[in-house]
Amino acid sequence: MSAPFLEECLPVLARTPTTLNALLRDLPEVWTTATEGPETWSPYVVIGHLVHAEQTDWMPRLKIILEHGTNRPFDSFNREAQFHASDEKSLPEWLDEFITLRQDSLAHLRELNLSAEQLNLNGMHPELGHVTVRQLLATWTAHDLAHILQVSRVMAKRYKQDVGPWAAYLSVMK
Amino acid sequence: MSAPFLEECLPVLARTPTTLNALLRDLPEVWTTATEGPETWSPYVVIGHLVHAEQTDWMPRLKIILEHGTNRPFDSFNREAQFHASDEKSLPEWLDEFITLRQDSLAHLRELNLSAEQLNLNGMHPELGHVTVRQLLATWTAHDLAHILQVSRVMAKRYKQDVGPWAAYLSVMK
Repeated sequence: MSAPFLEECLPVLARTPTTLNALLRDLPEVWTTATEGPETWSPYVVIGHLVHAEQTDWMPRLKIILEHGTNRPFDSFNREAQFHASDEKSLPEWLDEFITLRQDSLAHLRELNLSAEQLNLNGMHPELGHVTVRQLLATWTAHDLAHILQVSRVMAKRYKQDVGPWAAYLSVMK
Repeated sequence: MSAPFLEECLPVLARTPTTLNALLRDLPEVWTTATEGPETWSPYVVIGHLVHAEQTDWMPRLKIILEHGTNRPFDSFNREAQFHASDEKSLPEWLDEFITLRQDSLAHLRELNLSAEQLNLNGMHPELGHVTVRQLLATWTAHDLAHILQVSRVMAKRYKQDVGPWAAYLSVMK
């Protein structure tokens, strides 16, 4: 891989499915279905969202930039698609699917062997306007980390009452 | 294990070292030494902190409650001890140590076979006053999750500029 920026992103992108698998697989459902209240996401829903993003967001958008530049705007991404998936899966099934899809995405990304110049190519986001390949890869990476953050926050907050006076030392409970 | 609350905590406590190992081992140092600014913690420092907590905080405090109740306050916990460790280790060494210490802690915790009644026993925190065994176990669990949250937040924020206009969609960047 020629672009150093990719060598930074790839190891994080490769670790996300194994990290979430290590945290969530076979956990009691009280943890995996916990939310932060109405209209908020459980760890289970987050994994469905990551599967959907893998199928329709990251590599498909990269492909659009490489093939069409700014001439073809990205398709809109449905952040809520996992709520309407007709084939509702168990959490281990979603995790397996995420692991496989991510492996395929990264194999494809490595094959593209993107150059530093290609990282500067522009695409057209339907709402945000011009975005570069580099920004897309950075966002993919940060989006992964933001959902690991979300899952651990949702789980920690289950114990807001249970920690008693220690809540004063745990900023996540505030 | 007789107390259902323990059956909730244990699977999370058991997963923390493997989760952080999956996320951090052999990552480029730009990620593991990243911070949120002066006086803030890198992922590397967080793992050192978790090792120190494992050695001096959770099981030692539980033992004090079971042996002395409220008669002997806990020793103070030094949140900064990992900065002064004379035997500074590599990240993989800290991870290995955390994995081993946690296995030992949980083996010991399972052996204690705590009853629902024992979860209500009181100890004396040097600053917070009366705390129960149940609150100690909940805090141990939430503290793990809060540090997974912290590590993923520190890493995500490295890309605050790199994500470009997508920052508007990533609340972690705000």
